[in-house]
Amino acid sequence: MQVRVPLAKRMEVLGTETAFAVGAEAADLASKGVKVYPFHLGDLDMLTPKHIREAATQAMNEGKTGYCPNAGITPLREALAEDVGGARGLSLDGGNVSVQPGGKPVIGKFIMAFMDPGDEVLYPNPGFPIYESMIGFHGGKPKPYGFIETENGFALDFESIERQITPATKLFIYNNYHNPTSAASDDAEMKRLAELCVKHDLIVLSDESYFDILFDGQAKSIVSLPGMFERTVILYTFSKKFAMTGWRLGAAVGPENLVSVISRFNVNDESCTAQFIQWAGIAALKGPLDEYQKMMSTLRERRDVAVEILDSMNGIHVAKPQSTFYLFPNVTEAMGHLGTKTVEEFRKKVLDETGVSFTTRNHFGSPLEGENQSYIRLAYSGIGVEDIREGLGRMKELLDR
Amino acid sequence: MQVRVPLAKRMEVLGTETAFAVGAEAADLASKGVKVYPFHLGDLDMLTPKHIREAATQAMNEGKTGYCPNAGITPLREALAEDVGGARGLSLDGGNVSVQPGGKPVIGKFIMAFMDPGDEVLYPNPGFPIYESMIGFHGGKPKPYGFIETENGFALDFESIERQITPATKLFIYNNYHNPTSAASDDAEMKRLAELCVKHDLIVLSDESYFDILFDGQAKSIVSLPGMFERTVILYTFSKKFAMTGWRLGAAVGPENLVSVISRFNVNDESCTAQFIQWAGIAALKGPLDEYQKMMSTLRERRDVAVEILDSMNGIHVAKPQSTFYLFPNVTEAMGHLGTKTVEEFRKKVLDETGVSFTTRNHFGSPLEGENQSYIRLAYSGIGVEDIREGLGRMKELLDR
Repeated sequence: MQVRVPLAKRMEVLGTETAFAVGAEAADLASKGVKVYPFHLGDLDMLTPKHIREAATQAMNEGKTGYCPNAGITPLREALAEDVGGARGLSLDGGNVSVQPGGKPVIGKFIMAFMDPGDEVLYPNPGFPIYESMIGFHGGKPKPYGFIETENGFALDFESIERQITPATKLFIYNNYHNPTSAASDDAEMKRLAELCVKHDLIVLSDESYFDILFDGQAKSIVSLPGMFERTVILYTFSKKFAMTGWRLGAAVGPENLVSVISRFNVNDESCTAQFIQWAGIAALKGPLDEYQKMMSTLRERRDVAVEILDSMNGIHVAKPQSTFYLFPNVTEAMGHLGTKTVEEFRKKVLDETGVSFTTRNHFGSPLEGENQSYIRLAYSGIGVEDIREGLGRMKELLDR
Repeated sequence: MQVRVPLAKRMEVLGTETAFAVGAEAADLASKGVKVYPFHLGDLDMLTPKHIREAATQAMNEGKTGYCPNAGITPLREALAEDVGGARGLSLDGGNVSVQPGGKPVIGKFIMAFMDPGDEVLYPNPGFPIYESMIGFHGGKPKPYGFIETENGFALDFESIERQITPATKLFIYNNYHNPTSAASDDAEMKRLAELCVKHDLIVLSDESYFDILFDGQAKSIVSLPGMFERTVILYTFSKKFAMTGWRLGAAVGPENLVSVISRFNVNDESCTAQFIQWAGIAALKGPLDEYQKMMSTLRERRDVAVEILDSMNGIHVAKPQSTFYLFPNVTEAMGHLGTKTVEEFRKKVLDETGVSFTTRNHFGSPLEGENQSYIRLAYSGIGVEDIREGLGRMKELLDR
């Protein structure tokens, strides 16, 4: 028997990550014996470094299996303050850190803490779909801003940002180094954005999930610009740098008056993050970085191979990005070659005919008004270089036909 | 520099667990060299069984460190369906289970999913403070119901429940076996409550955190009564039975149409629960139970000793409860003996003069209208039998003076 249970009205606006459906489709195809090339995954196919796993085991066996402080254990908060602060030119302490079960929880908690119903929030679209979901769910007005394709990749569309700032704009979500476009702000762009946030007194969520996945140059955070640290919460995650996606360990880092508010949700939502996982986090931050460097060189090779083949395809253009493990090629012309009218049709056709599985621009928000180019997203974090060559080779053949 | 950041208005009604302050006070005292007897902790001083720790390490080393399905890995969902269903006389499958990072996240997710602003929610007071916090935070009307002290412990106050049910009452939160009173419904009480929930078409959160911490008889869940399973979400946790408080592993268990809604929050809030911790959960459910039995006999001995000394104190009465690891003695008379006007004064005086640290009724909600008896809560989960004897001996001396 089933009782008809009326859901809360707010459930109508709760979003999701539609990209999971692509994974299910790929798995279904693979189960039928088709070779699938998994460019849809945002996960890493690398093992968490041994010294981090060992630290978790040791902590577990030492009995670090009980409750711990809501905001995280003090030595991890201090290690994060040193590491995250140091990489951004700031001198922080444990009070600037709220440990979280992953980077993702920071998004909802930030929005609940600082956004009232009716407040407007600027967020990237294409972008990580949870921003829009959480803004809408908690009664805010999601205001998407876009990106402009350039010679070298993508740049913030300041026209769409400036046009949408009103007295009701309260929060700005910035995701530099950006999923899915791989956009990385240059100094001028970051400075212009910081000045805008200060001028309009916006509170900023700086999602820095890919801060450490940078192939060239020095990573830079907007919090190092004048007037920005005091209005910004950094979303930090162990997932990428340390191949710890499934450990669920992250943090909110920022001024104590903002971060302490985030911690108030920890008491209500999950009590604390698993204790021995926090001890493993300390080992990650203080341990050797050779596995990380090896991962970066593996990712670099994959990127180079993938970009070369993709960019040589009939009707596809992609620049070589300096960060993240995503490629966001423009496939507008290629769609025509295959006789597909929508990017979803294109995705399906390529998957069915070649086994190459990827997501599209539409998995990262609804296209904005006036958008007339089509993009797909390929992640090279979960696929080896041989399969990249083979899969993209088959896709190239399909487009050259 | 600090920017004045206006918090969202909803933050004014976000509650907390005030009991944490008692822990801080006790730690402060201990740091001054005073011997503290920690009856304030709701944590266990036992190590997680070895086979569970080993399963976690093995899973970690096998690379079960990546993302996994939002609702949990299939084998854990199936193991929980079998275990939780079996103990409640139900035949469940994996679709009835949504894995969570602890039992606590079920509270907020249940409320967000099924309560609209203005809906009324009945919840126990005294009770776990997060119920009231989450009801209020998400715009509902918290309607506390109380307990009546009996010869054998505590019983639901049906008068306060029935009086408060209105057409606006949507949800009922039931916590059998109950923190802090240790109340355990007998068959007649549970049946009466079930009939009331069916009659008024209430959706029920059954917080069964202490289902397995029962010293005598067979644990019973309200979901086994007619018409109840289909309207109830069970809060399940690994924390107590397996001494896994700091692992943060729990689940929502119930009909698929309710549980699948809970899982929609997993996508938005935390992606998934740490993967290798889920594999350890399977080892817990399918492994030997000798450590659990040992824990129960340790807890039984502590309970017996604590009850005997407490009940012999001047002006204190407590019945011997059959479940949980809490005692909730009536200290109304004893407060008079010590010349303390409030239960908080009483707590402070006992702590200062004897080092015995406990929480009071007031840490579990504001006293209800007409309440004229005072209670304290002693947890014996984190203190050995020798210290129980010594600490409560000192408290008895103080009251006998």
